[in-house]
Amino acid sequence: MVEKQIVQWLKSNCLIRNKKVKIGIGDDTAVLEYDKKHYLLLTTDIVVENVHFKLTEAKFSQIGRKALAVNISDIAAMGGIPAWALVSLGLPEKKATAFKSIFKGILQLAKPFSIDIIGGNLSRSDIFFVDIFLVGMVEKKNLVLRSTGKPGDLVFVTGTLGGAQKRKQFEFMPRVKEARIIASYIKPTAMIDLSDGLASDARKLAEASNCGIEIEAEKIPISKDANRYKPIFSALYDGEDYELVFTVSPDGAEKVPEKISGLKITRIGKLIKQKIFVLKYSDGKQIKLQEEKFKHFK
Amino acid sequence: MVEKQIVQWLKSNCLIRNKKVKIGIGDDTAVLEYDKKHYLLLTTDIVVENVHFKLTEAKFSQIGRKALAVNISDIAAMGGIPAWALVSLGLPEKKATAFKSIFKGILQLAKPFSIDIIGGNLSRSDIFFVDIFLVGMVEKKNLVLRSTGKPGDLVFVTGTLGGAQKRKQFEFMPRVKEARIIASYIKPTAMIDLSDGLASDARKLAEASNCGIEIEAEKIPISKDANRYKPIFSALYDGEDYELVFTVSPDGAEKVPEKISGLKITRIGKLIKQKIFVLKYSDGKQIKLQEEKFKHFK
Repeated sequence: MVEKQIVQWLKSNCLIRNKKVKIGIGDDTAVLEYDKKHYLLLTTDIVVENVHFKLTEAKFSQIGRKALAVNISDIAAMGGIPAWALVSLGLPEKKATAFKSIFKGILQLAKPFSIDIIGGNLSRSDIFFVDIFLVGMVEKKNLVLRSTGKPGDLVFVTGTLGGAQKRKQFEFMPRVKEARIIASYIKPTAMIDLSDGLASDARKLAEASNCGIEIEAEKIPISKDANRYKPIFSALYDGEDYELVFTVSPDGAEKVPEKISGLKITRIGKLIKQKIFVLKYSDGKQIKLQEEKFKHFK
Repeated sequence: MVEKQIVQWLKSNCLIRNKKVKIGIGDDTAVLEYDKKHYLLLTTDIVVENVHFKLTEAKFSQIGRKALAVNISDIAAMGGIPAWALVSLGLPEKKATAFKSIFKGILQLAKPFSIDIIGGNLSRSDIFFVDIFLVGMVEKKNLVLRSTGKPGDLVFVTGTLGGAQKRKQFEFMPRVKEARIIASYIKPTAMIDLSDGLASDARKLAEASNCGIEIEAEKIPISKDANRYKPIFSALYDGEDYELVFTVSPDGAEKVPEKISGLKITRIGKLIKQKIFVLKYSDGKQIKLQEEKFKHFK
């Protein structure tokens, strides 16, 4: 059973009845009414030993930092600011003292983003895992969903993509500052963060918006860490970039600057009416974008 | 390193800076400002394979139900109503289809409590775990903390205790209805739910309130499932009762009824000034209450 089917099952079995819920399952975060001018954003993302990291390849502080960073990235993708976190840790009994290093990693990011750790949970476990529940806030006028793109909208991406496994997955700075500028000045029609890879996540945005997508192969901004023999595929499928993909209506495209706070912004394609997900080369060659390379469940 | 020291480390390293946070780490839930009349309550509790359940002894639907029930119990202990949940599941790849049964168990309780599942996360994992983040709400006037008891306050408990491993851990109905009545009519000085066992949790309430506690051995209400040879110890240390312990100022004790919605309420002791935690027998014998029998980390 593929992940998509699981999410579909959940959507149809977990119907929302409460009127304060603006968005439930299916976007980067859930969205709840807060006050006249703000929504609350709620998200959870987990990092699990042997799936998201190996103890031989990652320091505990890196694991903690990453666990918070991926959640902050989800709040950023909605145009919001992170505020409060609850942290669940699973720790093998013999290595329980690792909790300090994990928390030091978490606090490395919590401090600069002014996130308060307001609760959590520790449990023995045969494997390490860190599950963070992050609550953020966004002005109602700045909320950006992934489901509101339109055919013809231009697709942009921040930064460069590919090869994030080398270093970036542990060092990336979630794009909160940039997302705030995008949400308030550029007013994108839709936005998503890149966790599984451009091919998978841009497709998710398109599907949620009931569109297809065309990505121009040669326009994709390639990271210097990307695989040098297959740079485009590295950018499409490696994942863990934690950059932002956003869409802008054709007449809003001139408002998109080349850089935001020094970070490169690149137009890489457009949303289309036909439900196809394709990579186009300048010589006319066109290939289908595969779904994610990394699947939790096949 | 014991759990208590871990929590202490967290408290002193995760300082709260945001003014909207009324309570951070250290109570049954975190407490955030919501609107003029309400607080938000946020909690997370996890159930992990081989620690909280064994697959040979529990059905997947029971595991899902329990994962939500323990979180609802935390919201109840604050006087609140559960509202929205995010669910993180760790699933071994070969048994991924179990997610449906786990969710069916979660929905068994989510529906009667009108809890919306608004988000979550699925991950491959070598072991099963279910981590639920539950958000609830409480009228400001009904919020009950564990840290506000006073020496001389009388200690009450709902229901009967002991032997919950036999059945109750999978079947208990979190005491939301009863807690709401306690919070609004009895106005207790402090409250906590019983997850680790009366000895451990009543002590936590006393310590958080900067008091000691005396429990009268023969007054403890014993469940018919408690160990028949050591009923008092079974009630004190088995854990998983998910009943409520609350304290009432001496002049408010007459307001405490014998039953609430058919559930027995029993006075079992009092908070005292001296920081000792003791079990008293009617013949004058007095023994020290041990800390929890079940520790995650020694």
